[in-house]
Amino acid sequence: MSSLIVKNALIVTQDKDRRIIKGDILVEDNLIVQVGKVTGDADEVIEAGGDIVMPGMVNTHSHIAMSVMKGVADDVPFGKFLDKVFAIDSDRQEKDLLAGAKLGAMEMLLSGTTTFVDMYYSEDIIAKAVQQAGLRGVLCWAVLDVQFTTQKGVPLDNCKRFFAEHKDQERIYPGIGLQGVYVCSTETFQASEEFSRSSGALMHFHLSETRKEVYDHKDKTGKRPADYLESIGVLSDRCLAAHSAWLTINEVKALGRNGCSIATCPVSNMKLATGGVAPIPEMMMNGVNVSVGTDGSTTNNSLDMFGEMKMLALLQKSYRWDPTILPAQQVLDLVTLNGAKAVHLEMEIGSIEVGKKADMVILDGKAPNLRPLLPDNVVSNIVYCGNAGNVKTVLCDGKAVVRDRHVRTMDQKKVLEESEPALISLRKGH
Amino acid sequence: MSSLIVKNALIVTQDKDRRIIKGDILVEDNLIVQVGKVTGDADEVIEAGGDIVMPGMVNTHSHIAMSVMKGVADDVPFGKFLDKVFAIDSDRQEKDLLAGAKLGAMEMLLSGTTTFVDMYYSEDIIAKAVQQAGLRGVLCWAVLDVQFTTQKGVPLDNCKRFFAEHKDQERIYPGIGLQGVYVCSTETFQASEEFSRSSGALMHFHLSETRKEVYDHKDKTGKRPADYLESIGVLSDRCLAAHSAWLTINEVKALGRNGCSIATCPVSNMKLATGGVAPIPEMMMNGVNVSVGTDGSTTNNSLDMFGEMKMLALLQKSYRWDPTILPAQQVLDLVTLNGAKAVHLEMEIGSIEVGKKADMVILDGKAPNLRPLLPDNVVSNIVYCGNAGNVKTVLCDGKAVVRDRHVRTMDQKKVLEESEPALISLRKGH
Repeated sequence: MSSLIVKNALIVTQDKDRRIIKGDILVEDNLIVQVGKVTGDADEVIEAGGDIVMPGMVNTHSHIAMSVMKGVADDVPFGKFLDKVFAIDSDRQEKDLLAGAKLGAMEMLLSGTTTFVDMYYSEDIIAKAVQQAGLRGVLCWAVLDVQFTTQKGVPLDNCKRFFAEHKDQERIYPGIGLQGVYVCSTETFQASEEFSRSSGALMHFHLSETRKEVYDHKDKTGKRPADYLESIGVLSDRCLAAHSAWLTINEVKALGRNGCSIATCPVSNMKLATGGVAPIPEMMMNGVNVSVGTDGSTTNNSLDMFGEMKMLALLQKSYRWDPTILPAQQVLDLVTLNGAKAVHLEMEIGSIEVGKKADMVILDGKAPNLRPLLPDNVVSNIVYCGNAGNVKTVLCDGKAVVRDRHVRTMDQKKVLEESEPALISLRKGH
Repeated sequence: MSSLIVKNALIVTQDKDRRIIKGDILVEDNLIVQVGKVTGDADEVIEAGGDIVMPGMVNTHSHIAMSVMKGVADDVPFGKFLDKVFAIDSDRQEKDLLAGAKLGAMEMLLSGTTTFVDMYYSEDIIAKAVQQAGLRGVLCWAVLDVQFTTQKGVPLDNCKRFFAEHKDQERIYPGIGLQGVYVCSTETFQASEEFSRSSGALMHFHLSETRKEVYDHKDKTGKRPADYLESIGVLSDRCLAAHSAWLTINEVKALGRNGCSIATCPVSNMKLATGGVAPIPEMMMNGVNVSVGTDGSTTNNSLDMFGEMKMLALLQKSYRWDPTILPAQQVLDLVTLNGAKAVHLEMEIGSIEVGKKADMVILDGKAPNLRPLLPDNVVSNIVYCGNAGNVKTVLCDGKAVVRDRHVRTMDQKKVLEESEPALISLRKGH
């Protein structure tokens, strides 16, 4: 058994009472076994010296292999954006995917994310990067109708094979990544839901990101996407819908009564100027579990959940002319507890409590941007003042995968050096 | 004469052609004397090793003494916010102001800001912090009508005295800080403009931040604030208007034809949910010089211009449903060249060119969030991927005031330790 103590921290527990505790945390193997005053020794002692400890964040929508594609399609109309990104993407080699996945995994760890949901083809390659990095990946293999894909074989079959091969691997949670109603037929959705029901796999899908996709679908089927998904019987608490911006209140209620989660992606929606602002207050009122995702690096262009928290809070407040919407504590809940719930890991991660997995982030309490720092402003400081550069140390599954702002599990230099060749080769001819 | 070389950098010059150069920079005393290939030695050599060098940023609206007030009034309606902040503020002691100003100066340097505009009373205290920190401060003494102030004496007289005492001090640019039309009479504005004309002092004022202040003023005078300011003859190229969110197109044109600058504060406006979104595209089309400010730490709660750049670009894109608005290069221009112009220092700072003052920021080129890094995505990476934690080294006026993420000009530990007592004492009784 290995043990680790974090000493003298300001602990943002995110427990039921949202307690802020000055004290220590004892970790044995990958579990938190004590929170408060810890006496005795351990194999590794991290002296926090007043640093902030918070739960590792959960990013519930991303495409991390795109991390090497930063800046390929900024500031252009949405149609041009899609053409450019799809053209590059359809041409990608395994080594580019791996280079991107490694870089993305590194970016996430260094910015305090310990669990993420990914949607892509070739999730087996991404799984390698996740295993090496030592974070948790909910890896949803891209599923769509055969006539729309560049995948070899039937996407859902590929997804099932990936699931079977990875379901027992540590920190890997294979899932189904339905691309959206525009490329997935009723049959594809229903077959996926059947597989999800029998296997427990998460059913992750893009939903109502743009106005066009909503009205195209309505023209075709007579129903808006979320109404349609309910009508074909595929909504359940195994569903995690990304974006979910262009929804009516009836669709919000449909998501709520079926126990769905959503991953709102404010930075991506704003940068692409899709117009829709996810109706977060209505979702919360109607029982939808709201979580937060960064989306991929062509639309953000970052995997930074600090930026995402602030953007989300401010977008919601400003859009409604109401500064009381999404107070800091609620925002922090979305990226920890709600994120954990969205991927069905609420019993294992999302808070710093005895019995949970030790997924924790240590923020530099000596960073001037986080000071003055008191128990009653620490949550506000995390949400409104914090940035990824404040992350000093990250524990995932009990292991210190980041120390002193450096990823310990990967060859950081090598991963970075592989990123430019990947970008250059991807751009060629596009 | 002292000399300094920055070697092997990816230089974002912000010159007329927006050239990106791989090379070196030679600084002699406080001036840039060579950009490109530098041979020979210097007193200090900074090996950039592929790091990014960009001009120091210019934050054109802030109240840095409020840096110790983080989190005192989050997520509350605007009226409550004002009551709370004014109550605390009217009660402040000199030592709290100094503690806040020092902390704020540190936060700015560590996030890559080398020049800032401040509006507050007791700017003489803030000047002390600025001098110690080694950054440039355009310090605008709060001017308002006698019946509305807690200042001793007549505010404009205090401002004039401050100006006389500080106009020849290094890196200090004293200015006039008119609080707004709601507490400044026509006479106060006109007397200030007369002083500005004779002295060259910047005339900085809040303008049309909230809908209420616009309509209150219209009820009182028959004119909207910017129309009114033009009608009383106080608009000129010495004016820098903060916020400027609730403007008609006629007011935008008035600002443009009078050569005014504005400081848009997107984070502050969004957090307070003031509703107005500054009409940046129209301002640019009509010759208004647009720059960017963070506002104070009760409304942001940060002085981080990286966060501000991204928020501004995304707010404008999303508000107009147009992703082509404010492309990355334009955003970077606003926080460098336009910021310099707003404070009449465009001949001295804002770009990395021979003859300009050496105000430069070195960003960590080995930070995963900034990779892949190429000359043609570096600007996008700064704006959309960068964060304050990427700032390694900062030069202001030729001096390396930040090295290895540490402020060299101040006792960082002491400044931080003074911040909590200041916040606790300010909160008492409020």
